[in-house]
Amino acid sequence: MGFWKTWFSTPESVSATKSAAFEEHTASTGDPSANSDRIVFSTERDIDLYELEELCDAVGWSRRPLRKVKKAIEHSFLVASMWQVRGNQRRLIGFARATSDHAFNATIWDVVVHPDFQGKGLGKALMKYVLKKLRSEEISNVTLFADPHVVDFYRTMGFMSDPEGIKGMFWYPH
Amino acid sequence: MGFWKTWFSTPESVSATKSAAFEEHTASTGDPSANSDRIVFSTERDIDLYELEELCDAVGWSRRPLRKVKKAIEHSFLVASMWQVRGNQRRLIGFARATSDHAFNATIWDVVVHPDFQGKGLGKALMKYVLKKLRSEEISNVTLFADPHVVDFYRTMGFMSDPEGIKGMFWYPH
Ligand SMILES: CC(C)(COP(=O)(O)OP(=O)(O)OC[C@H]1O[C@@H](n2cnc3c(N)ncnc32)[C@H](O)[C@@H]1OP(=O)(O)O)[C@@H](O)C(=O)NCCC(=O)NCCS
Ligand SMILES: CC(C)(COP(=O)(O)OP(=O)(O)OC[C@H]1O[C@@H](n2cnc3c(N)ncnc32)[C@H](O)[C@@H]1OP(=O)(O)O)[C@@H](O)C(=O)NCCC(=O)NCCS
Repeated sequence: MGFWKTWFSTPESVSATKSAAFEEHTASTGDPSANSDRIVFSTERDIDLYELEELCDAVGWSRRPLRKVKKAIEHSFLVASMWQVRGNQRRLIGFARATSDHAFNATIWDVVVHPDFQGKGLGKALMKYVLKKLRSEEISNVTLFADPHVVDFYRTMGFMSDPEGIKGMFWYPH
Repeated sequence: MGFWKTWFSTPESVSATKSAAFEEHTASTGDPSANSDRIVFSTERDIDLYELEELCDAVGWSRRPLRKVKKAIEHSFLVASMWQVRGNQRRLIGFARATSDHAFNATIWDVVVHPDFQGKGLGKALMKYVLKKLRSEEISNVTLFADPHVVDFYRTMGFMSDPEGIKGMFWYPH
């Protein structure tokens, strides 16, 4: 991994702020001389839906109608994306979103890191970014539904499964 | 239990329709002659916050700032309430709400029936109403987090816990 800079934009989730200010973060892992690559985080919603579909394809998720994906992004409380930036090119390499009542709870969905970028701590960085944003909105109860193979991934970030016996439950239309 | 009429209003969740049309349902349990009591379901959001607080108090839930409850109701996808109607008086006897991305998923929160009305099938009726509304919005994935003592209540309605090993997980700010 090169010299990653991580870049945080302000939350676009609640107010539709036009002028996004940027905070810049520098991750000190790797070689400081190879500074042509940066990892940038954003809460902008104008994500190319085909690029997002490609990312989800890459981890084997089944395709979803783009019309519905568009609607889901519009109505999520938080949309977080992670980009590899090289010169003036950028590539979508990570994504996550959260639904919320804007007051008490938020539920995180569709967490994904491109296979080329997995296992480098970027999934964790993306989740930290999401949690930081949710905390800044005073959300006190952050939840998610984890596939069995990623329960430990979320546990490393402080998520607890079934705390005090609370059970995640699902209902599908029939 | 008397002659319950259940009354469904149209969903207010997505579009802010002003003129709410009403469907009327008749539950055939009980004595048809004692028709002075009705149970009415609604998706209207103009719920008296003090009346809602009283209902939550009655089941022992800890108090929450009304300012945040108001915000949560505004930003929930669906707000369902259940009322006992006697003549021109109405009493809030049940409540539930759901967050959603308006496309794929919805998560149900704060399901409550007043103790005076528990064990009569009304919790189930309220949940059926919620599920009917969510289905009419083409939501295909309905989730919730159930306290241990109500897992069986949700199971009777077709909710499954940990399907295919999917785990409900929680994170609290620290
Ligand atoms: C799950 C996913 C987002 C993790 O991203 P990543 O960038 O590979 O994860 P990181 O490199 O940041 O790993 C962070 C920590 O979690 C651990 N971890 C990563 N993936 C894990 C997995 N699948 N199972 C268990 N632990 C995992 C790492 O070992 C690391 O632990 P450490 O902090 O103790 O070193 C990514 O693998 C992915 O997109 N998978 C496919 C899509 C998916 O399954 N999403 C979740 C749907 S519920
Ligand atoms: C949980 C609650 C909403 C149920 O409402 P209710 O009106 O009493 O439930 P119903 O009478 O409709 O019961 C429906 C079915 O669930 C069962 N049931 C009801 N409460 C149950 C419970 N606590 N545990 C297990 N089963 C239960 C009933 O036996 C019935 O089964 P059946 O259809 O096989 O006859 C209500 O008890 C309540 O408000 N409790 C306090 C608040 C709470 O804990 N909410 C859930 C937070 S996650």
